[in-house]
Parts: sequence; C-alpha cells; structure tokens
Amino acid sequence: MTRSDLYAQIRSKSSYLCVGLDTDIQKIPSHLRSEPDPVFAFNRAIIEATHEYAVAYKPNLAFYEALGPRGWESLQKTLEIIPKECFTIADAKRGDIGNTSGLYARAFFDKSASGLEFDSVTVAPYMGADSVKPFLAFENKWVILLALTSNPGSHDFQRLALKDSDRALFEEVLLTSAQWGTADQLMYVVGATRADQLARIRELIPDHFLLVPGVGAQGGSLADVSRYGMNSQCGLLVNSSRAIIYASSGEDFARRAADEARAVQQEMAGYLEQYA
Amino acid sequence: MTRSDLYAQIRSKSSYLCVGLDTDIQKIPSHLRSEPDPVFAFNRAIIEATHEYAVAYKPNLAFYEALGPRGWESLQKTLEIIPKECFTIADAKRGDIGNTSGLYARAFFDKSASGLEFDSVTVAPYMGADSVKPFLAFENKWVILLALTSNPGSHDFQRLALKDSDRALFEEVLLTSAQWGTADQLMYVVGATRADQLARIRELIPDHFLLVPGVGAQGGSLADVSRYGMNSQCGLLVNSSRAIIYASSGEDFARRAADEARAVQQEMAGYLEQYA
Repeated sequence: MTRSDLYAQIRSKSSYLCVGLDTDIQKIPSHLRSEPDPVFAFNRAIIEATHEYAVAYKPNLAFYEALGPRGWESLQKTLEIIPKECFTIADAKRGDIGNTSGLYARAFFDKSASGLEFDSVTVAPYMGADSVKPFLAFENKWVILLALTSNPGSHDFQRLALKDSDRALFEEVLLTSAQWGTADQLMYVVGATRADQLARIRELIPDHFLLVPGVGAQGGSLADVSRYGMNSQCGLLVNSSRAIIYASSGEDFARRAADEARAVQQEMAGYLEQYA
Repeated sequence: MTRSDLYAQIRSKSSYLCVGLDTDIQKIPSHLRSEPDPVFAFNRAIIEATHEYAVAYKPNLAFYEALGPRGWESLQKTLEIIPKECFTIADAKRGDIGNTSGLYARAFFDKSASGLEFDSVTVAPYMGADSVKPFLAFENKWVILLALTSNPGSHDFQRLALKDSDRALFEEVLLTSAQWGTADQLMYVVGATRADQLARIRELIPDHFLLVPGVGAQGGSLADVSRYGMNSQCGLLVNSSRAIIYASSGEDFARRAADEARAVQQEMAGYLEQYA
C-alpha cells in the first residue's frame, strides 16, 4: 500500500485507528471456544464489527506463535478476510543479519513462500542498517521501526544519552534510519504521549508516519498525541488493542468492540478536522 | 538444561561447537527435494552426522517462518530428534513488552502450548528489562541476549559511546542485563573475534556463557576466541552454520558435514586442554 492510498483511507473513514489483534485464546468469550478455530472466529467478528472505523489491523505475532502451527494458520485466515483497503501490520519486532532478515521479509511479505502478505512489519533497530534494508527492497511494503516504546524497559537503553551527539539513543535511531529509506516505506513506533517529546520527535522526522501504542487500555492521551504528532498527511496510526477487542467478554463482544472503535473514530474525526 | 549439565557435555565431547541449522530450502541437495519434508530430511541427516561433535544446535527461525506453517512443522520435527544431551537454541531474536514476551516464552519453552520446547531463545535487548524477564521465569531455560553482533550494522548503534558512562551501548547492555538474572539463565551473543574486545568483555562478565557467531564461513579466528573468551567452565558456544551444513551440495553432504564438524571439534579439544 502506498502512502497516498493510506492517507485516502484515513480521509474517507475520518479515522487513524489501528486495531491490535492481540488475540489471547484464554481471554476470548467462552461461547467461541467450541469453534473449530476460536482465534479466527474471534478475529473475524472483531474485523467485521470494526472495519468501518479502523484503517489498520495489527496482529501481534507472539499471540499466534504461542499456539504453534495452528496459530499461524489462524493468522493466515485472519489476514485473508481483512478488507483490502485496510493497512496490515505484522507486529513481529524481527531483525537479524542481512540475508536472514531477507527471509523474515519473505515470511511477512511474500505470500507464495509463507502464505502471508502484510503491508508492513515491525522491526527492532539494534542490529543496524543491514538488518532493516532487506525489508525495504519490497515495493510498496513498509518497515515500522521501533524507536521509542511505551513500556517501563524503554528507560533501560532507548533513552540513554549518547556521548558525541548528546541525543538519546532513540533519537539517533530516528535520524540514522531515516537515511535508509524514504517516508514512503518507513514508519516508526513511538510510544511517547507527552507533548514535549512528540513535538521534539516531529522536529527530527516531520514527514514519517508514527505508529503510536499506549493510547487506550495502556493510558495516554489521544488529544495530545493528535495535537503534537499529526502532520499535513495525518502521519499517525494510533493503536488500541485490549480496550476494543476485550470491551466485553460476553456474547456481545463484537457489538461492544464496534462501540469502542466508533467512539475513538469520532474523537479522531474532530482532530483531523482541527490539525491535519 | 543447567549450566553444569552443559559443561559436563562440553567435557565429555571435548567440544563447544554449536551447529546452526540455517536450512534454506533453496540450498539443500537436490536429491532431498522429493522428500515429503525436505527441510526435516536435511536436518535429520545433519544432526545424525554431527551430534558426536556438537554440543548445541541452533535453528534460525527466519528460515522456518519463511515457509509458513509447514516450516514450523519441520522445526517441531527437527527439535524432536535432537539428542537430549544437546543444548537447543531458538535463534529468534524476539522481544516485546512484558505480557507479550511472556507469550513468546510460551512459544519457545512450553511444548503444551506451541509444540516446541527449546533450552534457550535469543532475545533483542532494545526494549529493556520487562521484555527479557518473562523468559527468565522458566526454570532451567535460558535467554541469550544480543549484545555485540558480527554484522556491519553493529556499528550503527551497538558501538556508540554513552554520555554518562563512556561505555559503548553493548557494554551497557551487558552490565545492565546481568542484573536481571544469573549466569545460570543468561548468555550473550558476542560477535567479537578481536582479542582486545573479547578480553574487555570478559572483564565485564567473567562468568557468563558467550554464544559466538562469525567463526567459520563468516571469518574470525577460533584460536583467538578460545584464548580470550574461555573461562574456567569453558563459557563458550561457538557457532558454525554454512561451513558445516553446506560443506557439500551433493549426496555426500552429511558425510562432509561430519568431516567439518569433526575438524572443528578436534581444534576445540586442544583449546579446552590449554585454556579451561
């Protein structure tokens, strides 16, 4: 998917919501557990209920891998039914030396090899340029690079100041990696929700899309993210997982997920009007 | 597997060789391609030919994921036939926020969930403590944390000097993460083959096992690694992938793999005599 396709979808749905398909077999409503593939049945209902309000879907691979090969089959089937206009993110946080990252790229981008074809994959930056570039060789596919994450451990290394530049490591990751590709193939995971951090990040990378977790069940303010993070082409995908997919644990889970997604979308419509 | 079990195996085989099962379906001998599961057939022959000389096997997950669900099945079958005394490494380079890393731990350590049970998994440090600790909650299982990798991209971030400590980022990773667990559950990927680098790393973490790639087909000197990296309990696993598994592309591939593995093991036996 191209950046202009993504922006067109954002405009037409008045939304930059990404729904995280962190589907935990132990948390899905009990009436689905007798289905032949409970994870797929849950995802299908969530996607049908929310695709009017969401521009992207992001399955986190850990939830599928923990189930072994049948988890990968649930993931394949899920990907098949996501509407074609939606942007798909394999939240896999992969990264390896060059030739091996090329195989991960095939795993997520080349349907003829793996049965999966996502629009994008999240990648960890620690191993540097040659671990990222093989993903960028695929046309109209995206790398979403981890820059600043929202978990407590982000303080351990990402925020450490570097000697020569006085920049934090995550800022160096932004500036260095932005040389490896264009804003039409690179996005960043930015877990910042504080206004000053987002404003600073937008100074460093004005054009790139940011994938922002930590709004919704993890806390954080959609208003601040939108005000300080948005650029003229929106430039934001804001993820919500648990607050939407586990809005209810009963038989009404899909309707309640739709209610939550619609509420977020309506708030986003206002911010798009105001800032983009 | 405990550290003393691993050391006992190293002593009994006079070897600290790890064979990397980077099994590329496009590189395996053509006569195997008519097998029902060519990747498994190749791995089985390699394991049978080399287990006398190797103490560990390390499948790199990218090679299996690139094949989709059937790749995971090949991996499961491969893991089943690795002799019980051998240490097994899922070279997956995973890492995510706490609860999600817990699911990755289940994927690689909990056979009842995923069908896979490795002794260890490689993990990327970028997301910090809470991305690593869930793996450490499994008894007698190991995290092998990326510290210094051997690829060109290791210069992009891992070797940058930090402002407050004057240490390189990878040194900070070693010192900080060594607080998260013990040398009985944490190892490090250290791609250093230069004597001065290894000596410095051994000052920082004298007790931990190091998994050293880059000896063999990627270059690097086994003599230097052994001299400067070994500690009193060996403390080294030295990986070789392509130089062993692709020693021949003909029908004699397994015999040639055994020859290569034996040659490395015999060199290692000498270093164990000399330095451990």
